[in-house]
Amino acid sequence: MSLEEVLDEIRREVTPDPEERELVEGFARRILSEVRDRLKERDPDAEVELIGSVARDTWLPGASDVDVFCVFPKDRDLDEIVEVTLEVGREAIEALGGEAREEYAHHPYIGGEVEHRGRTFEVDVVPCYDTEPGEVITPVDRTPHHNRYVEEHLEDTVEARLLKAFVKAIDAYGAEVRVKGFSGYLCELLAIHYGSFEEVLREAVRTWRPGFVIDLEGFVGEVYEDYDEVRETFEDQDPALIVLDPVDPERNVAAALSRRQLTRFILAARAFLGDPSPEFFRGRKPEPVSGEKVRDWFERNPTHVVAIEVRLPDEVEDIYWPQLEKTARSLSRVLENEGFEVRRWHVMRDSEEEHGYVLLEFEHGKLPELEWRVGPSGWVREDRVRGFVRAHGRFWVEEDGKLATRAERKFVRPEDLLGRLEGADRQTLLSHGFGKDLARSSEGEVRLLSAEELAELADRDPELGKALAEFMRGDPLSELVRDRL
Amino acid sequence: MSLEEVLDEIRREVTPDPEERELVEGFARRILSEVRDRLKERDPDAEVELIGSVARDTWLPGASDVDVFCVFPKDRDLDEIVEVTLEVGREAIEALGGEAREEYAHHPYIGGEVEHRGRTFEVDVVPCYDTEPGEVITPVDRTPHHNRYVEEHLEDTVEARLLKAFVKAIDAYGAEVRVKGFSGYLCELLAIHYGSFEEVLREAVRTWRPGFVIDLEGFVGEVYEDYDEVRETFEDQDPALIVLDPVDPERNVAAALSRRQLTRFILAARAFLGDPSPEFFRGRKPEPVSGEKVRDWFERNPTHVVAIEVRLPDEVEDIYWPQLEKTARSLSRVLENEGFEVRRWHVMRDSEEEHGYVLLEFEHGKLPELEWRVGPSGWVREDRVRGFVRAHGRFWVEEDGKLATRAERKFVRPEDLLGRLEGADRQTLLSHGFGKDLARSSEGEVRLLSAEELAELADRDPELGKALAEFMRGDPLSELVRDRL
Repeated sequence: MSLEEVLDEIRREVTPDPEERELVEGFARRILSEVRDRLKERDPDAEVELIGSVARDTWLPGASDVDVFCVFPKDRDLDEIVEVTLEVGREAIEALGGEAREEYAHHPYIGGEVEHRGRTFEVDVVPCYDTEPGEVITPVDRTPHHNRYVEEHLEDTVEARLLKAFVKAIDAYGAEVRVKGFSGYLCELLAIHYGSFEEVLREAVRTWRPGFVIDLEGFVGEVYEDYDEVRETFEDQDPALIVLDPVDPERNVAAALSRRQLTRFILAARAFLGDPSPEFFRGRKPEPVSGEKVRDWFERNPTHVVAIEVRLPDEVEDIYWPQLEKTARSLSRVLENEGFEVRRWHVMRDSEEEHGYVLLEFEHGKLPELEWRVGPSGWVREDRVRGFVRAHGRFWVEEDGKLATRAERKFVRPEDLLGRLEGADRQTLLSHGFGKDLARSSEGEVRLLSAEELAELADRDPELGKALAEFMRGDPLSELVRDRL
Repeated sequence: MSLEEVLDEIRREVTPDPEERELVEGFARRILSEVRDRLKERDPDAEVELIGSVARDTWLPGASDVDVFCVFPKDRDLDEIVEVTLEVGREAIEALGGEAREEYAHHPYIGGEVEHRGRTFEVDVVPCYDTEPGEVITPVDRTPHHNRYVEEHLEDTVEARLLKAFVKAIDAYGAEVRVKGFSGYLCELLAIHYGSFEEVLREAVRTWRPGFVIDLEGFVGEVYEDYDEVRETFEDQDPALIVLDPVDPERNVAAALSRRQLTRFILAARAFLGDPSPEFFRGRKPEPVSGEKVRDWFERNPTHVVAIEVRLPDEVEDIYWPQLEKTARSLSRVLENEGFEVRRWHVMRDSEEEHGYVLLEFEHGKLPELEWRVGPSGWVREDRVRGFVRAHGRFWVEEDGKLATRAERKFVRPEDLLGRLEGADRQTLLSHGFGKDLARSSEGEVRLLSAEELAELADRDPELGKALAEFMRGDPLSELVRDRL
């Protein structure tokens, strides 16, 4: 198929038909008016705004997220606007037959599920202040400005829809920590900046690399002296891309994007441009692997894999996921300090968000009992030299002047070290680099799993089955791009 | 024993008694006059000088090296002075009943062994020019200036003798490449600079470290702006110490000293000052190990050792030894590139200088068949990405954006790779990092040795037995210092 044929087909697919449009927009109007009526009673100066992809007309068929913002004058207390919003949000959701619950991001807000003509909508009602773009009081105050910017500048909404569908299909949609991908707003800005989906892909392949700056509003030359100053400003984020927020030049819209997702996007873009196919929009989540396959894999696997089960804290994913990753990274470091070579780590969680899993792959299941331990040079502090010589007695002196010896290893198998975590207390977990909340929730609950236990998990929970499939078989993107590059 | 008691005892030991003094100095006078008589006939303007430790009165009992320099006016041709020296040197040696042979360092000279009252003297007769210190024509022209400097400045020759005996005993005496230690001239300068053997040790422990500058003649402030300029000047040598040559500020007398020997000297000095004993002057060459012990060691050894035999070229040690070391270093690098962890390498040679040996110690004798191969990031040159993806098909994307995959290893055992060297041609050896002459001489002659073959070598050649003892049991210094630090 030619690129135009594919794009035409997908444009039709990603554009809601009139019926669905009426369903979603109709629901949005209803919840908006339910909130507005109640809000005006409590605070006549406050306004209600529909936010997000439904408001911007960049939503994809099947959409179910509707975000309503209650926008208050700046002189109100934060406590006050939160209280009002929680109340009117709860009442509005319940008035439509939904169930409301209090949520928390930067400050509390109301979420709820509402059934409407056969579709379950996820509604959020969020308080914020009416501010100028440059003087936001809470982080969400920026959101209405984002909304307005996209509404004013996005000429062809279907191009943003194409891009969202593309990143969704390669599992790179969303700024949440588990994904570290492209947020909806980022997709919209890219569509605005490059003019079309196709141009986003072409320019990504041609120009994107870590530290590349995208400046829609010409801040460079105005707010920033030059591109180097932009890069210096965001240096600490070690950003994969820098997309200056049109409503706030000090913010990088792509701050959450990882280098991993940057590579994945560029690869997918290259492959798609090289050999266009609707397949790229079909979703690449791997099939969950069966327990049988897990058993099989472990039996044939020539390397050594250790699986650690932890208990997740009762926190949102954006809190516990980075802690799970940090734990995997810390354990790798601890193990490497003891001479083990960790090839890679992989983290996953079950679908109930009860347990997290760290998989560590090692070059060897067992190290020789003696290690080559390198100590200080002769000219460093006397006590260090004395300590090394007294401890080991026998030594060699290396070319660079360092003492070295063959010494008995503390841990011969990774399990010898990791076994200390089984049932360990909070302090021990913290000292091995567990995240704060994870160390608390996992106290006494850490277990090393056998291949058999992993196999059983794969059979019981398809989410784990999928994660294991990726661990064992590779990035689902591989299959899509390998014959197209 | 107190430090003074030990030093008194050793001072007596290192000072030749009158009888031996008469033997050595008598011989030196004889060879000197034999050379002088003949030289004056050939070139009346040339002078003869006795050089080296006998001339400087810093020789140790048992000394047998006598160096005679023929010093010519600057206007003579190099060919001419070489020709004259070879002739008069040969005649003088033969006149004393010795056998002369032509040798080569910077230019040709005459060497020979001469029996004299029961001792075999090693005589060298070397041509050089009579120059000012700053305008030497050949490198050996500096030597007479060194001689004069030491004669003029060394107040207490026994302190230089102590230092030489000390470094000799710890196997750190000599600037040759196999030792990379302290030359006789360096020992003499240190004794001059610090005033006594004891002060050399104290200051070494207190101040020496890589890049430390010793400036006997106050060149810093005159020739050099400051110490940093000195360090910058010699940066390329990556020197363990910088000892500015009093007769040539642009030369580092300690250029040959390695960090390994610096550490060994400091360790020995610390241990000796902490617990003085005559043992430090007794020589620490290890006892050769028996074949039985070698077999035993290899049987118990939990790591993996591979021994490679090469044929040495017909060159002096200073030529082939660095090539042997370079070969060991290159092979380690080649092996590490293929995923093997080389803990350490060790080189040795037999006493006939026919064969060299490279011992490599590995963490593991066998690697898993699959390796974790890391490739390019998505944003680098398209052909590299395409190459990686096409070659491997399946991949994962790492946190830093690099593609990675599990790929079959080319070599599972170090022998799989090193086996290619057995009987290999010159080109193959060169491409594995063999030194130039070593690649030529070893063409078709490289062999991997079994533990049994190594054991047999240990039984056959005590020199190899000693080297193996050091490889297996550690630096002989260990035993001396371990309870004294």
